[in-house]
Amino acid sequence: MPPIRIALAQTNPVVGDLSGNLRTCLERVEEAAEKGAAIVVFAEMVASGYPIEDLATRESFLNDSVEAVKNFAVELNERGLGQIVVVLGTPAIVAEEHRSPWAIAQNAAVLIREGKVWAGYAKHHLPNYSVFDEYRIFVPGDQLISFELGDLKFSMLICEDIWQEGGPVAKLREENTDIALVLNGSPFEIDKDDRRVELVKNLAAKQDVAVAYVNLVGGQDDLVFDGDSLMIDADQKLIGRGKQFDQDLLLFDITSKREIAAVSEIASHKQDDNWQIWNALVLGLRDYVNKNNFKSVILGLSGGIDSAVCAALAVDALGSHRVFGVSMPSKYSSDHSKSDAFDLAKRLGINIRTEPIKGAVKELEKQLKLKDTSAENLQARVRGTILMSLSNQEGHLTLTTGNKTELAVGYSTIYGDSVGGFAPLKDVAKTLVWQLARWRNDWATQQGQAAPIPENSISKPPSAELRPGQVDQDSLPPYDVLDEILDAYIERKLGREQIKALGFEAATVDRVVGLVDRAEWKRRQGAIGPKITGMAFGRDRRLPITNKYS
Amino acid sequence: MPPIRIALAQTNPVVGDLSGNLRTCLERVEEAAEKGAAIVVFAEMVASGYPIEDLATRESFLNDSVEAVKNFAVELNERGLGQIVVVLGTPAIVAEEHRSPWAIAQNAAVLIREGKVWAGYAKHHLPNYSVFDEYRIFVPGDQLISFELGDLKFSMLICEDIWQEGGPVAKLREENTDIALVLNGSPFEIDKDDRRVELVKNLAAKQDVAVAYVNLVGGQDDLVFDGDSLMIDADQKLIGRGKQFDQDLLLFDITSKREIAAVSEIASHKQDDNWQIWNALVLGLRDYVNKNNFKSVILGLSGGIDSAVCAALAVDALGSHRVFGVSMPSKYSSDHSKSDAFDLAKRLGINIRTEPIKGAVKELEKQLKLKDTSAENLQARVRGTILMSLSNQEGHLTLTTGNKTELAVGYSTIYGDSVGGFAPLKDVAKTLVWQLARWRNDWATQQGQAAPIPENSISKPPSAELRPGQVDQDSLPPYDVLDEILDAYIERKLGREQIKALGFEAATVDRVVGLVDRAEWKRRQGAIGPKITGMAFGRDRRLPITNKYS
Repeated sequence: MPPIRIALAQTNPVVGDLSGNLRTCLERVEEAAEKGAAIVVFAEMVASGYPIEDLATRESFLNDSVEAVKNFAVELNERGLGQIVVVLGTPAIVAEEHRSPWAIAQNAAVLIREGKVWAGYAKHHLPNYSVFDEYRIFVPGDQLISFELGDLKFSMLICEDIWQEGGPVAKLREENTDIALVLNGSPFEIDKDDRRVELVKNLAAKQDVAVAYVNLVGGQDDLVFDGDSLMIDADQKLIGRGKQFDQDLLLFDITSKREIAAVSEIASHKQDDNWQIWNALVLGLRDYVNKNNFKSVILGLSGGIDSAVCAALAVDALGSHRVFGVSMPSKYSSDHSKSDAFDLAKRLGINIRTEPIKGAVKELEKQLKLKDTSAENLQARVRGTILMSLSNQEGHLTLTTGNKTELAVGYSTIYGDSVGGFAPLKDVAKTLVWQLARWRNDWATQQGQAAPIPENSISKPPSAELRPGQVDQDSLPPYDVLDEILDAYIERKLGREQIKALGFEAATVDRVVGLVDRAEWKRRQGAIGPKITGMAFGRDRRLPITNKYS
Repeated sequence: MPPIRIALAQTNPVVGDLSGNLRTCLERVEEAAEKGAAIVVFAEMVASGYPIEDLATRESFLNDSVEAVKNFAVELNERGLGQIVVVLGTPAIVAEEHRSPWAIAQNAAVLIREGKVWAGYAKHHLPNYSVFDEYRIFVPGDQLISFELGDLKFSMLICEDIWQEGGPVAKLREENTDIALVLNGSPFEIDKDDRRVELVKNLAAKQDVAVAYVNLVGGQDDLVFDGDSLMIDADQKLIGRGKQFDQDLLLFDITSKREIAAVSEIASHKQDDNWQIWNALVLGLRDYVNKNNFKSVILGLSGGIDSAVCAALAVDALGSHRVFGVSMPSKYSSDHSKSDAFDLAKRLGINIRTEPIKGAVKELEKQLKLKDTSAENLQARVRGTILMSLSNQEGHLTLTTGNKTELAVGYSTIYGDSVGGFAPLKDVAKTLVWQLARWRNDWATQQGQAAPIPENSISKPPSAELRPGQVDQDSLPPYDVLDEILDAYIERKLGREQIKALGFEAATVDRVVGLVDRAEWKRRQGAIGPKITGMAFGRDRRLPITNKYS
């Protein structure tokens, strides 16, 4: 038998855009067919986009999805592609008698051939942790579905199925599966790429199968799917992996589960963590802007590190002509704030304008007789109002530039510096903001380009500049200490006493934990932003606002 | 045998306040003992408050809960109450080998006697729909736990266990249970009280048991537990029910499952829907304010119906001395807006002040050259900034007065009229706001009191007054039509075509559905508010922002 050529298609669907997503699939099948593929595998829920959340509870949406996939099968056939086996992820509607008390859908992988949609596989292990709520919306499947092509036996699995024990994955060996086709919607997290390779290798070893692992790519609200699809043979050899943070079509010739060859040059080298994080943030921002049809973004440029990094990310995501900066100095703004903001804009080639806040601040401060924190918050709110006014007037998406550390301790003014529809640094701790800024500048230098971020924005002491001579460290512990305590409390979920036992000052720990707890109401009203860690704020960490536990 | 006296204790715990919640339990046990009770039953998770969300994933919290309940048992014994059987709900920590891939806790009911915590029952059916995420945080139990007292056999169940088929509830009859003790954390929804009675009666009939149904009472973030505990005998007779929206201690003498007598006069008459909704909103607001230690609330008074109803709710919740109104007229405000606001304040006896927005609006409008919608939004944002400034300066919680209809179609200015920490009308459609206003006035009249809400605020055409002569109906369909379409789309989850088939104008349906979908990003940043319907915005309805399905 000649080898069977398989294509792993790593595409970037938009949630709800059934026709657009399937048009892309059609193009990829055509391309794969031209390149001699006999089977094309797409990622989890590629027809509907992923995650669809409560769209899965709407019958009209499910019916439309089923219909769209049927039409797709017919169209493939009409274009002479009926002999290609296509495997793709899509929502399925469950017959009334098999529904759960609340779910009516399944997360399915269907087999398409000769113009027909053949019996599908339904995801068995439904993740209901972190950002996922799949018990809420899906009925679990319990059967392994396999098919033969030439001498080879293929079985379908979906994402979480290979992260948990038991279920259909445990039947691969007894089913004599040669190739497990794993359809994934696996979002980026720092270090997850390495864990995925290990996981897939373990599966290959345990069940004695080759594994074709296909992941989505693209940003969807707070998630960034990073692609990085994989082919691993039954001897656990990595045959090739797809691009990270970009669409890709990988081709392999499979003679047997132990004889698989990459058809063309395929990357197996991975870039370092800083590159990955930067590109995750860029893709998350780009897709949020483009998928929601915004032409441009606007953000305040304070001369500080957060807004500088946001602007640099926005330029990498959208190009400089789509990024608009606003310098909004007050009487407390230092000269360097203004000059650093203009230096940044010049380096990035973006539009910048100055809109002083003095007039409105003076008016309201006097009228309301505001003092101290109230007067400080007023400055931030007038800035927020200016940004939103320009956004309304000119049609830009407003970016909010706050970082994860700020959000954690509530070091921001709600309806002030927090305004905006997307927060690129939402899951980036302050110390990581600096690290990324330095990395991005070094990377530019390595490419022979000018550093995009002014050195002064990186090296000066951070300040909100809401009163004379103010610096962040007046009211917060040093950021390196603060970020370590936050990591212990938020990501590692340690209690106060456990954190103190790590050697941090007791009073500092109490203060930080108290600040985090009290800021829950503000976080609840914050913009979404791309998740890059194991514990992002938002649906990854669900805590009551009313909460007296300490 | 003499009858056994049982007390059903309907208390109002605060999430996380282990010592405070158990102190209340101790007081109720003392009171019940004085009144001759041999057994006292509390509601679901009364020790920790409910729902605890991801607190259930923190080992330190679980250990502290377990420890607190142990100490409670010891203290009961030390106070000479060791002979009383106490059944209460509390989180339990699960041994490592029995954990789910992500959950480490159980939602338990424990039996306390003689200073010891005896084996507990773990909730079997974990709700993972609507506002609940219990698969995320709990490991399901699978065993019915029973105990004997005198001649009677009691078995424990928790809330969702009786809403689903199968599991421990199906074993009551074969276990020869006389009395099922059902511990609940069942939030208020319109009409749910009737469904609960039916459910409990069905359980009694099917398993031939008497049922003691104990519910929490109180507001916890967006949920309002309404109490309304029940005792139903094995012949499905309603023996008595507890207060709705208030704490209560119900006493019954049980001779057998068919012979149960209420010890004192116990309500079984229920008030009408308007009374229930009003009291749910009052309790939700009061508890949010008090449990979060706010002394007072502040809100803008526009002279319109929404702010009038919010102010009346706030006065019923907190008393007039804790409510502060601000009239913020613009050049477009009609004379009646100002006079209606002052009339309202006078009727309610609350503080009101005038803070014009003219100065700051003029300043920014000119500086930014704003026109049309941008200029309209500016007015709302200056109002928001004024309210938040006063909140910061004086320590009030800001109430946001928007209603569910507005939130649905995005008819509000984000960071403008939407500012605030709590939204009393978040789940109240505009037509229901009017209905409640009329009801509240009638109710006052019936009690011989002055109507709190000015008739003019109820009867005049609603207007945002952001430009001359503007009324809401310039840009929205009539509210009675709009609310029906929204009910079909949001609560009943119908698709566009299904809604059109109900007889609504196609263009109107398309427009409304489009507005709802596009406003998702705004809703995501909105304040929480009390859920009173089967489908509230917030964690009850989880949809992607990036979503091209139409």
